[in-house]
Amino acid sequence: MLARGAIGARLAESAASGPTAVEPPDVHAWLAEQRERAWMHVERVPLADLRGWAADPETGDIGHRSGKFFTVHGIDVRDPAGPVPGWSQPIINQPEVGVLGIAVAEFDGVLHLLMQAKAEPGNCNGVQLSPTVQATRSNYTRVHGGAAVPYLEHFLEPDPARVIADVRQSEQGAWFLRKRNRNMVIELDSSELDSSELDSSEVDSGGADGSTAARDGFCWLTLATVRRLLAEDDLINMDARTVLSCLPLPLPGEADDGSLHPTRELLSWITSARTAAEIDVRRSPLRGLTGWSQADGAIRHDSGLFFEVVGVSVRACGREVAEWTQPMLAVRDVGLVAFLVRRIGGVQHALLQVRPEPGCLDVAELAPTVQCTPANYGFLPAEARPRFLDAVLSAPAERVLFDATMSEEGGRFYHARTRYLVVEDSAADTGPTGDLERAGFKWVALHQAADLVRHSHYLNIQARSLLACLPGRADG
Amino acid sequence: MLARGAIGARLAESAASGPTAVEPPDVHAWLAEQRERAWMHVERVPLADLRGWAADPETGDIGHRSGKFFTVHGIDVRDPAGPVPGWSQPIINQPEVGVLGIAVAEFDGVLHLLMQAKAEPGNCNGVQLSPTVQATRSNYTRVHGGAAVPYLEHFLEPDPARVIADVRQSEQGAWFLRKRNRNMVIELDSSELDSSELDSSEVDSGGADGSTAARDGFCWLTLATVRRLLAEDDLINMDARTVLSCLPLPLPGEADDGSLHPTRELLSWITSARTAAEIDVRRSPLRGLTGWSQADGAIRHDSGLFFEVVGVSVRACGREVAEWTQPMLAVRDVGLVAFLVRRIGGVQHALLQVRPEPGCLDVAELAPTVQCTPANYGFLPAEARPRFLDAVLSAPAERVLFDATMSEEGGRFYHARTRYLVVEDSAADTGPTGDLERAGFKWVALHQAADLVRHSHYLNIQARSLLACLPGRADG
Repeated sequence: MLARGAIGARLAESAASGPTAVEPPDVHAWLAEQRERAWMHVERVPLADLRGWAADPETGDIGHRSGKFFTVHGIDVRDPAGPVPGWSQPIINQPEVGVLGIAVAEFDGVLHLLMQAKAEPGNCNGVQLSPTVQATRSNYTRVHGGAAVPYLEHFLEPDPARVIADVRQSEQGAWFLRKRNRNMVIELDSSELDSSELDSSEVDSGGADGSTAARDGFCWLTLATVRRLLAEDDLINMDARTVLSCLPLPLPGEADDGSLHPTRELLSWITSARTAAEIDVRRSPLRGLTGWSQADGAIRHDSGLFFEVVGVSVRACGREVAEWTQPMLAVRDVGLVAFLVRRIGGVQHALLQVRPEPGCLDVAELAPTVQCTPANYGFLPAEARPRFLDAVLSAPAERVLFDATMSEEGGRFYHARTRYLVVEDSAADTGPTGDLERAGFKWVALHQAADLVRHSHYLNIQARSLLACLPGRADG
Repeated sequence: MLARGAIGARLAESAASGPTAVEPPDVHAWLAEQRERAWMHVERVPLADLRGWAADPETGDIGHRSGKFFTVHGIDVRDPAGPVPGWSQPIINQPEVGVLGIAVAEFDGVLHLLMQAKAEPGNCNGVQLSPTVQATRSNYTRVHGGAAVPYLEHFLEPDPARVIADVRQSEQGAWFLRKRNRNMVIELDSSELDSSELDSSEVDSGGADGSTAARDGFCWLTLATVRRLLAEDDLINMDARTVLSCLPLPLPGEADDGSLHPTRELLSWITSARTAAEIDVRRSPLRGLTGWSQADGAIRHDSGLFFEVVGVSVRACGREVAEWTQPMLAVRDVGLVAFLVRRIGGVQHALLQVRPEPGCLDVAELAPTVQCTPANYGFLPAEARPRFLDAVLSAPAERVLFDATMSEEGGRFYHARTRYLVVEDSAADTGPTGDLERAGFKWVALHQAADLVRHSHYLNIQARSLLACLPGRADG
């Protein structure tokens, strides 16, 4: 039942589906209702006022008294071959591997995804659509003493035959040190859901026949609806996007057919770039980190750029714990990530680079054509400006296939937003393939990228987010 | 020309070839001659007598004054779910990624592998057959001021179309902290070799027509000959074995056809085991490491088991540097690694486990059915004895498909030898698949294992060595 071909075809049907009786008739109205129920009040507070968190007297590193959750410490980075040869920065160290999981089930012959309306303190708009389950290990082992995570039981020991995707993937390598989360897609049997869910007092019966039962704050959506919502600003959260990128959707081109480079050549390219990279990352005390200062209860870069380490105080309704404080990274400017895409021999390709980042577990991962924070380049010379940045920003509307500004993880990042762009390449942008390759870029067929996402350490979170957003992914 | 199918078929032809005019007529005679030319005198010396190496005054960690090569320091390991819940040990930390490369070229229509007769101080018999190139980064950037590494130029910036395999693979996770080497197989054009090699004064013309030119100490062998030599004790070195495991030989069964578990299920199994593992590894000073003491110029475990950190003094002829001293791990007892194999639906499968080791970059890798040092179990209760150890040791001769004792890396390990066994499973050994899976084992089709070897972090070095040795790999 879950052979790759079969599940792919069923996902493609869901991506091509019209509205179904199981979905909320108006997702925006449903979300508005959820926003009223699950409100969250967030206030910035000085780092010294955090409860349960403290700076280590020697190093200044910020940690939780339980030793769990995460710490914020410093790193010194040397990257002699990179655009900036050396710098220091705070980074989040969260060694625990959490679960990001989407449950899917078939209703009336169509696969639906179980999405959650979830408020996070860092979201600029409170509630966004999240995966079914989004749980740190501390969460699911109940370190904080809060309520159980709904639906988690389906992800902890799944029946192997029901697993559609299951892979540990990295998160932002500029902000997280070696962070990985387990990205999972699990198929549930809708008849099984009926009986177990309808027993629960928390059930919201939803659809007419009761078969669409989902707990309060959750809804079943077809892939067609999820993909339509992906194009809206700040609606599908980062955790949902990375899980969506792992869906084994059918793509034209099998194995190496139709790709510009055989996969063997791409793997060698990645190996070679990882071997050549000389990025060196050393832990360093947060206190006294070169170029960073603590003032007004936050830690910021002397240039005012990049991000600040801040404290927030949160009062929430509709979450496991009603009130807490925590440190977050407050990101100053909107990021930009972009794919240049080109159809080569009828097969869609995206232009990727192998990008070393200090937080990468294995040196470097495949990144989008452009990945930067444009505002940070104001004080650098023109030649430091990332290649293709101007090309994607100035592309005429008819070549812009996707353009939405979405939020990064709202549990760790305060108002961190990124503009995601997919731009059809014009030959003038990229020029001959040989020049591109000397500059460290390669055209990768989308089916090759999707195959690499089955494994850890290949596509970075920005590239995966774009992969999830690519228009027409299901129909080639 | 190098499409996966095409190169696979050409490798299979080489594996089925009879003797060719290009090979030395008697490899053993050729090796004996090389042993006379490339002798190496190795003497154990106290650690304090090493030249260029020193113990850090604070930690006792042993490092080279250049800051290059490698260091020996301590680790404290906690593995609450493992057979031993916690221990401390010295470990080799060699962050540099070296190159292990085999060049192949076609002579008279048959692919040949360029192998090197190389002496290493840790080899019990001096010279063994090694890859074309075996170079640490310190080697090839000439930190030691020695001679250039022959043939290295073909591996540093290869033409992508000539790359047959190129992947960073782990080494012993019990002795090396996060060590990776770049495993490469590159096809050379034999006509190109003629001209460049025949110019060299070092050329040994070898074959009758001069086309088989190889530098002194190197020879061209068919895959058939290499595979025959693999079955002999202490002849094909570890570095050659790991590169050989990366050859894309054709195997019956394409994609998921014929495998007991779809690859998606295997990937989920690995993800799950990595997430569940609670192994925690912390760096610790070598001086004062719990359970280890320095005496008589070496560092050893108080039980006398495992390994010692020793010093050696080497005088060599036929290598880049004629005389040096270095620390090594002297391994006390012969290790054992074994595959139980079974034909399921006509497709050969091996029984693998996901094994956390302190040196793994990503928590755990796939390991053979049995991987242990039997002598270390003398003082442990019977229930601590590794599963299937007795089954593989007591299998009748007709079920033993492979049995050879080979050397581990002779540049770091002193007289470290491992017995490699492949045993045909009897139903009595393994019992029902369900029980096996609860115990953490799965049957993996050989073509699935070979596909995973294209990527880093999946098969550990012991499993890869066995994969290279498997009888009948080419003909299924």
